[in-house]
Amino acid sequence: MNQVTLNDTQAIAIGAGVLGTGGGGSTYLNRLRLENEIRKQGRNAQVIQADDVPDDALVCAVGGMGAPTVSNEKLQAGNEIETAVRALEAHLRRKIYAIVIGEIGGGNALGPMVAALQLGLPVVDGDGMGRAFPELDMDTFMIYGVAPAPFALADSHGNVTIFTRIGSAKQAEEFARSLTIEMGGSAALVMPVMTGAELKGTIIRNTVSLAKRIGETVLDCRARSSDPAETVAALCNGKVLFTGKIIDVERLTVQGFARGKLKISAFNPFQPPPIAVGIPPPVRRGDRGGIARGGLEIDFQNENLIARSNGAVLCTVPDLLTLVTLDEGEPIGTESLRYGLRVAVLAMPAPKELKTPEALEVVGPRAFGYDLEFQPMAGDLL
Amino acid sequence: MNQVTLNDTQAIAIGAGVLGTGGGGSTYLNRLRLENEIRKQGRNAQVIQADDVPDDALVCAVGGMGAPTVSNEKLQAGNEIETAVRALEAHLRRKIYAIVIGEIGGGNALGPMVAALQLGLPVVDGDGMGRAFPELDMDTFMIYGVAPAPFALADSHGNVTIFTRIGSAKQAEEFARSLTIEMGGSAALVMPVMTGAELKGTIIRNTVSLAKRIGETVLDCRARSSDPAETVAALCNGKVLFTGKIIDVERLTVQGFARGKLKISAFNPFQPPPIAVGIPPPVRRGDRGGIARGGLEIDFQNENLIARSNGAVLCTVPDLLTLVTLDEGEPIGTESLRYGLRVAVLAMPAPKELKTPEALEVVGPRAFGYDLEFQPMAGDLL
Repeated sequence: MNQVTLNDTQAIAIGAGVLGTGGGGSTYLNRLRLENEIRKQGRNAQVIQADDVPDDALVCAVGGMGAPTVSNEKLQAGNEIETAVRALEAHLRRKIYAIVIGEIGGGNALGPMVAALQLGLPVVDGDGMGRAFPELDMDTFMIYGVAPAPFALADSHGNVTIFTRIGSAKQAEEFARSLTIEMGGSAALVMPVMTGAELKGTIIRNTVSLAKRIGETVLDCRARSSDPAETVAALCNGKVLFTGKIIDVERLTVQGFARGKLKISAFNPFQPPPIAVGIPPPVRRGDRGGIARGGLEIDFQNENLIARSNGAVLCTVPDLLTLVTLDEGEPIGTESLRYGLRVAVLAMPAPKELKTPEALEVVGPRAFGYDLEFQPMAGDLL
Repeated sequence: MNQVTLNDTQAIAIGAGVLGTGGGGSTYLNRLRLENEIRKQGRNAQVIQADDVPDDALVCAVGGMGAPTVSNEKLQAGNEIETAVRALEAHLRRKIYAIVIGEIGGGNALGPMVAALQLGLPVVDGDGMGRAFPELDMDTFMIYGVAPAPFALADSHGNVTIFTRIGSAKQAEEFARSLTIEMGGSAALVMPVMTGAELKGTIIRNTVSLAKRIGETVLDCRARSSDPAETVAALCNGKVLFTGKIIDVERLTVQGFARGKLKISAFNPFQPPPIAVGIPPPVRRGDRGGIARGGLEIDFQNENLIARSNGAVLCTVPDLLTLVTLDEGEPIGTESLRYGLRVAVLAMPAPKELKTPEALEVVGPRAFGYDLEFQPMAGDLL
């Protein structure tokens, strides 16, 4: 693909929602913002390939930071990313060549396109996560060695700060998180700044195209009244882990994150229980009987991270876990979870860039505080 | 004065402690650091007058941010201010002409001299508070219109951030405070950057000289075994509000501040009760009887802010309230308050720059959450 037109925004929003695994912020507001910006400027967002960026050009990844429960309600000024990129350009006395999407998941796929239009820059087809993650250090750019500084944070009041020296990406996460909380719980992040050569060595390619393809598939299923979840699963080398009704949601916005658990119960007691999609854990038949049979539990922290059934782990981060509405295939953000929603739970394998030992140290289950090994699904997202 | 030598450090440390009103950080560590730096460099810290700075030269105020309870225990790397000043110079592509002391109170009088030596720059005889205050927006530079941005914050790990756009000094305080907490509770602050012309219009002059003179007076009293508190009070147009023993200290380190209350009781029940040093409140004789007679209570937030006796307000911020040891006249920081200390409580009038309506909006009792009018003492600090 080489541009994003008004005809593409709905598909990309749906696809980004699917890749968002519940996080990355609602796509709704950013889709409207993108459509407005395309109309206002009278031109489409330009998309280039990572390999089109000269090795010595400067690019920067951008996105929104904060809990989706906040960004869903707290309106943006609309130019936060633009302001932060301009501040970094002024600080570096260098022009930015292209905008890179920090995370393709959720609204964070679309916000960077708005900023790219405002800045008159193209956006690169790819991102640093192939999904969404809750923390800024969890991207392939920094996992594979791009320096975290300088990076910029801007809020809706026009306040901007540039971190010029920073010990580590994890340290950057801690500082940016506390400042984001002080900024009201959501802020624009420009990070990292990198050369074209660094970009090519670290980006997960073609994820904007993938988001669009997923969304088009969902829209096509809606038109044909076929099953969107199964079709998307097939497209992404994934599986429908479970279908059922949300019967419980525990959700707190704490320390700048939307954290919680949800429970999904089967529509009828004869529905087969969900089974592990990754390396299967030891099966203990006795665990599966009784009323709990067929239930699924998901832990989330902005994003859905771990799926369990009767205590058995079925799917683990960084593999993707996304809830979509059963009939429409509309992805559901963790900020929108509520009792009674009828959902399909999609499990999709992570991109291969997230499954190396270096990456798993940053985005594996243990990085989120779970005493679990990553149980990889077969195959790769793309 | 035109320099600070090894012979001056003790006097300046004592004087800064007296002006610190309990805050500004312990002078002990920074005095040692200053002596080490003078020895290491083989030269004294150079002191210039504000009027020696060319109108178009750039200067910056510097200091340590955080709760004195923290900075007293958490060792500095020692080059935090230098690192932050260099980062701002690089950001601005301008050289800094001289270092300005943000607050003359406590260790914050001495830290800037260390940084000035490291940077090879002179330090200006004056500061932005004439005492110490808990918040960064409480200085005459910003009260009288110097812009808060750009400003820099650096920690002991070498992390540096530059706030390039900021809505207000109060907003700067909020962001810098939350980041300082994330940095471990103490950080170096460089703020504001200003021209020589701005400096001359806003600085409180000659406070380094005053600190030295106060300290020399105390040392002289010690040599002569005369009363240091009364002598310092006379030098600063102040009064000894009370003498007694600390009988209670409530102190919490919360939200990056050392907040609390202390109670001082008279040595004997026949000691005359303390009386207001500012505009006297209506006297209600009935309030003064019984056991509470003669007791003094002080509220502090890093600095001592309000003195009361039997519910009557005796002295209010921005006038200075400092505890010194009874025999030695050694100033006592709020981080060192403890049961049993025998103290004299000095009340001194604020410099006139802190008593204008604009200033009182930022540093009067209401700015600290007290529903009280400022009750000014007669005269000015200098």
